Amino acid sequence: MAEDKVGRYEFVAEPFHVDFTGHLFMGVLGNHLLNCAGFHAADRGFGMARLHESNYTWVLSRLAVELEEMPASYDSFSVETWVENVYRLFTDRNFTILNKDGRPIGYARSVWAMINLDTRKPADLLELHGGRIVDYIETEKPCPIEKPGRIKVSALVPIRTIETYYSDIDVNGHVNSIKYMEHILDLFPKEMFLTRRIARFEMAYVAESYMGDRLSFFRDETEEGEYAIEVRKDIGGENPEGEVVCRCRVTFCNK
Amino acid sequence: MAEDKVGRYEFVAEPFHVDFTGHLFMGVLGNHLLNCAGFHAADRGFGMARLHESNYTWVLSRLAVELEEMPASYDSFSVETWVENVYRLFTDRNFTILNKDGRPIGYARSVWAMINLDTRKPADLLELHGGRIVDYIETEKPCPIEKPGRIKVSALVPIRTIETYYSDIDVNGHVNSIKYMEHILDLFPKEMFLTRRIARFEMAYVAESYMGDRLSFFRDETEEGEYAIEVRKDIGGENPEGEVVCRCRVTFCNK
Repeated sequence: MAEDKVGRYEFVAEPFHVDFTGHLFMGVLGNHLLNCAGFHAADRGFGMARLHESNYTWVLSRLAVELEEMPASYDSFSVETWVENVYRLFTDRNFTILNKDGRPIGYARSVWAMINLDTRKPADLLELHGGRIVDYIETEKPCPIEKPGRIKVSALVPIRTIETYYSDIDVNGHVNSIKYMEHILDLFPKEMFLTRRIARFEMAYVAESYMGDRLSFFRDETEEGEYAIEVRKDIGGENPEGEVVCRCRVTFCNK
Repeated sequence: MAEDKVGRYEFVAEPFHVDFTGHLFMGVLGNHLLNCAGFHAADRGFGMARLHESNYTWVLSRLAVELEEMPASYDSFSVETWVENVYRLFTDRNFTILNKDGRPIGYARSVWAMINLDTRKPADLLELHGGRIVDYIETEKPCPIEKPGRIKVSALVPIRTIETYYSDIDVNGHVNSIKYMEHILDLFPKEMFLTRRIARFEMAYVAESYMGDRLSFFRDETEEGEYAIEVRKDIGGENPEGEVVCRCRVTFCNK
């Protein structure tokens, strides 16, 4: 198994994991992608559990997902994942989303860092697991979508501010990466999802937030159907601008 | 397969499906239970897909879950489900939650009605699928927890009011049954989950709510560590009391 550079994992779009249009929630797909990354890394000796033993962990920095279609309720689909590049401080991990016939219906790109759990400082990936992560680099497999880019938001007034609660928080005590995706899509009205679908969804994770933090959402419409969103915490008092937690670009297209 | 009255389904507690204490979210367990109910019914000829063909659907009326322990991150566990009783308008479906060694760590009881999709009126379960649902009744298997009871809430002032958004809504256009569980647990502070765990969680579903509805949460502490919660929509104007959407009883115990 460890010889194989590409991991492939099977899923079914569960009935309560689809939205009112009958298609998988983007957040549920994102969760599956993160799980696949975890399975793939664990099977090759550089998973979370192994890293924790040596006091390190993976941190998701960027995620971009592009889809031609989203699996519908009860559809089988699969996800392939592989490591495209390893640098000293970052690694690029790609994904293909395949429909039940094995045809690619979407791709994703992600960028990860490894940090020391005590210092929270980035660690050298080329030293990880005796440098063996580079044995799994697969550069031939296509991932024909753009890399995650820079996201800039200029809106000055938040369109929504929420508090974070118990259900937002993951095992590390941080707001779950996927929950930001959900809260961001919750900014859009019903009509958007009725008439359009998400063509591309891109996240840049900048800082952690915690239970009870107030998150403010700033949104620009950058082109017709394309939105840039910035999430900031701790706005107010001596810190009128707050601190950036994450940024997102979501592109809707006609169905 | 259809001969077997009890269905058994295997799960793993996924890393992003556990809370900050490292244990499965109650809402995720609830989702698994509903999926098991769906698999079990579908395999025996009275699942959602078959019912929709004849313009009927299942509606969850009550759910009560009682646990000695909650599966932890990466734990394997399984769920057994069976039909305990079928009446004209309701059916009782029970569940056992088993840990990785096959030892029961919890039980659940649920009550379902079948409704006509056009009239939204209840249908006669004894006529369903040629009356064959009664062939699957299993009365010998123990489910040693109390049946869902009556829940009464007397609080006059809501402790929180929220709007419902895209991520709350299921394929039928209703707020997802599981999302109510999440919003209800979000009423409790971090300290509650640090020092205690949920011993019993009980939901009574009364009416549907929809995207954009404002939900108000009324809460009584009925005994030490036991809370009764009522969720109401459309409060205000000519309707100062609003309409009851669901009620919940949650009992916390020391860890």
